[in-house]
Amino acid sequence: MMRWWGWGEDGHDKPLSSTADAVMRGEIGELPAARREPVPLDAVELPPATLPPATRERLIELVGTAHLREDHVTRVEHAVGRGYPDLVRLRAGRLDVAPDAVAFPGTPAEVAGLLRLCAAEGVAVVPFGGGTSVVGGVEALRGRFAAVLTVDLRRLDGLLAVDPVALTATFAAGVLGPAAEEALAAHGLTLGHFPQSFEFSTVGGWVATRSAGQASSGYGRIDDLVVALRVATPAGEIVTRAVPASAAGPSVRELLVGSEGAFGIITEVTLRVRPRPAVRRYEGFALPGFAAGTAAFRTLVQAGAAPDVARLSDEQETRVSLALAGDSRSTQALAGYLRARRRANGAIVIAGWEGEAQDVRHRRTATVRILREHGAVALGTRIGHAWEKGRFHAPYLRDELLSRGVLIETLETATSWSRLAELHREVGAAIDGALRGRGTPPIVWCHVSHVYPDGASLYFTFVARQQLGEELAQWHALKAAAGDAILAHGGTITHHHAVGRDHGPWLAREIGELGVELLTATKARLDPEGIMNPGKLVLPAPLPGGPAA
Amino acid sequence: MMRWWGWGEDGHDKPLSSTADAVMRGEIGELPAARREPVPLDAVELPPATLPPATRERLIELVGTAHLREDHVTRVEHAVGRGYPDLVRLRAGRLDVAPDAVAFPGTPAEVAGLLRLCAAEGVAVVPFGGGTSVVGGVEALRGRFAAVLTVDLRRLDGLLAVDPVALTATFAAGVLGPAAEEALAAHGLTLGHFPQSFEFSTVGGWVATRSAGQASSGYGRIDDLVVALRVATPAGEIVTRAVPASAAGPSVRELLVGSEGAFGIITEVTLRVRPRPAVRRYEGFALPGFAAGTAAFRTLVQAGAAPDVARLSDEQETRVSLALAGDSRSTQALAGYLRARRRANGAIVIAGWEGEAQDVRHRRTATVRILREHGAVALGTRIGHAWEKGRFHAPYLRDELLSRGVLIETLETATSWSRLAELHREVGAAIDGALRGRGTPPIVWCHVSHVYPDGASLYFTFVARQQLGEELAQWHALKAAAGDAILAHGGTITHHHAVGRDHGPWLAREIGELGVELLTATKARLDPEGIMNPGKLVLPAPLPGGPAA
Repeated sequence: MMRWWGWGEDGHDKPLSSTADAVMRGEIGELPAARREPVPLDAVELPPATLPPATRERLIELVGTAHLREDHVTRVEHAVGRGYPDLVRLRAGRLDVAPDAVAFPGTPAEVAGLLRLCAAEGVAVVPFGGGTSVVGGVEALRGRFAAVLTVDLRRLDGLLAVDPVALTATFAAGVLGPAAEEALAAHGLTLGHFPQSFEFSTVGGWVATRSAGQASSGYGRIDDLVVALRVATPAGEIVTRAVPASAAGPSVRELLVGSEGAFGIITEVTLRVRPRPAVRRYEGFALPGFAAGTAAFRTLVQAGAAPDVARLSDEQETRVSLALAGDSRSTQALAGYLRARRRANGAIVIAGWEGEAQDVRHRRTATVRILREHGAVALGTRIGHAWEKGRFHAPYLRDELLSRGVLIETLETATSWSRLAELHREVGAAIDGALRGRGTPPIVWCHVSHVYPDGASLYFTFVARQQLGEELAQWHALKAAAGDAILAHGGTITHHHAVGRDHGPWLAREIGELGVELLTATKARLDPEGIMNPGKLVLPAPLPGGPAA
Repeated sequence: MMRWWGWGEDGHDKPLSSTADAVMRGEIGELPAARREPVPLDAVELPPATLPPATRERLIELVGTAHLREDHVTRVEHAVGRGYPDLVRLRAGRLDVAPDAVAFPGTPAEVAGLLRLCAAEGVAVVPFGGGTSVVGGVEALRGRFAAVLTVDLRRLDGLLAVDPVALTATFAAGVLGPAAEEALAAHGLTLGHFPQSFEFSTVGGWVATRSAGQASSGYGRIDDLVVALRVATPAGEIVTRAVPASAAGPSVRELLVGSEGAFGIITEVTLRVRPRPAVRRYEGFALPGFAAGTAAFRTLVQAGAAPDVARLSDEQETRVSLALAGDSRSTQALAGYLRARRRANGAIVIAGWEGEAQDVRHRRTATVRILREHGAVALGTRIGHAWEKGRFHAPYLRDELLSRGVLIETLETATSWSRLAELHREVGAAIDGALRGRGTPPIVWCHVSHVYPDGASLYFTFVARQQLGEELAQWHALKAAAGDAILAHGGTITHHHAVGRDHGPWLAREIGELGVELLTATKARLDPEGIMNPGKLVLPAPLPGGPAA
């Protein structure tokens, strides 16, 4: 379990380097002198628990006393996810939401029983994998119900079956990323799915949110890897057929992938896996700029020569990353080298190839040839493997910055290659404008991390001074501006973070009113009482920090 | 338009070679002495047309007099598709179904208008692309309605837009395969989608049925190529967002791909396209048998070394193909070579690579190395390009065999590599048993034509003597036996032919009762009156030839 007030486990936090500190304060302004630490755990205020005693008894009958918890710590740990508004509320100790109880079912049958029971008793249900949602997906909203039960899936654990012929593996939905990879490694296999949340998120959560991993350009998004699903819904269980392809009508599997707990709870997932790569080679390159980088990435993917990891920082991210890397000799040497090769204002690429040695060699040659045609200067493997080593660490920096009074947030989108420059420019401008308009000028940076033949993702990160006492309103303003800009300029409201609560208000503009109604009709059939994850996906709740309804 | 009683255009028919004739009659028994030709067109009996005059007037207001047809020829041409029960009924001149009228709308707005009008007037609507469905998908069933209008989409024609940066192309749904490729060729592009029906089927039809083409192992199925759709439904229009990937909930696009006209009519499609290949190299290989061949194909696709066209005939198909190829010197030479190399009872592979010369060379080397490890003997490019040349011609043979009193039918499925041998054996046995049980022993052959990392397709073809006067009951018996065997042994009821009318009775066993209810809920929202393609997909009609309900 992650620490209650932030990301991951203690011991990974580091103060900012003096270079980074100076750069940041120079651009966003002076920060509060005193650190703003989280309140003590027992000072966190929660709404009163309202689980009716008769319901509690029935829940305990179903899962056993040991697997129903109502204590303060458990409620705090399951109240919200790990988005910016979540962290702000957690650290301040003022939560307007919390589950009345948390159940830890041990089997798919227990999950099904919980859903039937909650439907009968009028209790809202929030499915909870690793709790890493950054879009409000696990927030314990109760909707119109008198009580809300969070269903923590950690006991649905383990690799249930491996088919070494078809190269598929069936997991219980609650298995965490590292456990999934470890279990596969014993069979010489890998899933190859490494979202930034990898260490604390679950296989079921990945499928429920259409996750993409850092090597998804090579291995495919999680939605590309799902062969079959087992899903418990209030209306009954769905088990989709494990066939490689079918023309038997619209895909029911695709209707459940990305359903974010609003239709039911995924209990088992069968995924395509691969032999564990013998070689993993990660390298850095410096391109003249973001435009040259996107042209190179487009050429690569359309030529079938994209690396498995394909990450391109824009000029701003390149600059910020160097600042964050501190003042070590190696960073200074890199900065000097970039100046000498006239790439000081360039864009850094991380490229990674995984597989058999000969295959990696061959594919690397093809990639590098095209990168060079677009002005790439090789930076070697040290920077590549440094990125790999730190690939899951960025969220710890977020905790440190919050302690310094800094707003730090990320958001992501995707569009076609032909609109990528426009979307990059306009979303960046919208974030900048919204924050500058509140007197808190930001630094906004961005990278491409997933490439497709027809387009790519954009992942924005930005920092600004927190408006103390107005943190949620400040966030709401920038989120609204960014969401509107994304949809106005041909993007999707989310490439891999999911809809959750935070993107609900934009869903109708993304998929149309009729599209929303189709999803609503599906929900109505599977969850007639509407108990599943209220306020998420199709029936959005208002965002935190917005104008009062 | 295809000839009214069979496949394609006149001039492609050929009598069987004497070798083929002898082999066939030796195995399935003696055929009728006299040929059984189709009845004359004007002798075809149709149900009386029942379009109310007031409805006709409103339809004409909408599309114009020239674009509403009710004549005998047009009704016959649009009554059914090109499945075996369709051909039997057409040739006998006894159709129990026909549209009361056929509309030819010219714009998506006219399509939308037609659907609104028909919903208001209580007229069933059957969307019609090229009319090539082999599963009863375009049969003019009227369901509970007093009249049925077929909507022929041929006037929704042309390449509407090309994005040369994102490599996508937007087509009007009614454009035929050859016209689509010709339009793309002018831009140096290809879609690479070549189903056997290519010459007479439409882009919209491919998407509506989740089509797979003969090069889909390389280019991807049509469902892999769809970026966005425009669909007219009785409840309004849906336009999905053209982004390369999204995590914004379950995919509405996937709910419309494969909807087979039961939810609405696809009017426009945006697809991923590729540069036209400089080189197309097709080659034949002989493997020791089907088991060695499937092992080779599995290794190829799991190693990322599959060719773009990957076709593996089982021993029976290899033998039948050689017999059908006749007694030419080249066929005799091939047979002699196979005997000499101890592959006389082997399995023939057609492998095709498309792309830049160097890329083809490199990929071919990788493929051939693995094929050789599985005992492949190279047969050269002549057999490969002979297959390519004849790839769209098999349906003409069907017409010839029907004239000889021979039942010829195909059906297809897919499963995981670990169950492929079982499915191959059991479906073959089910077809054999059903036909043998009626006193008409068949020859059953099969090929793999689409490979995936986790499995492959199986495409069965079989011939038997027709039971004269009992043709539909004979077909029903084998279809039922095959469908039951497919689902009992881990297959999908259809890999690329779609559900249509013929697979409807198996859909609930494929996707579950709850899965069917989800699709029914979608249909109810988009088509509240239930006018769209009654009896297809989710609400199946009884099959032709079955026991009376």
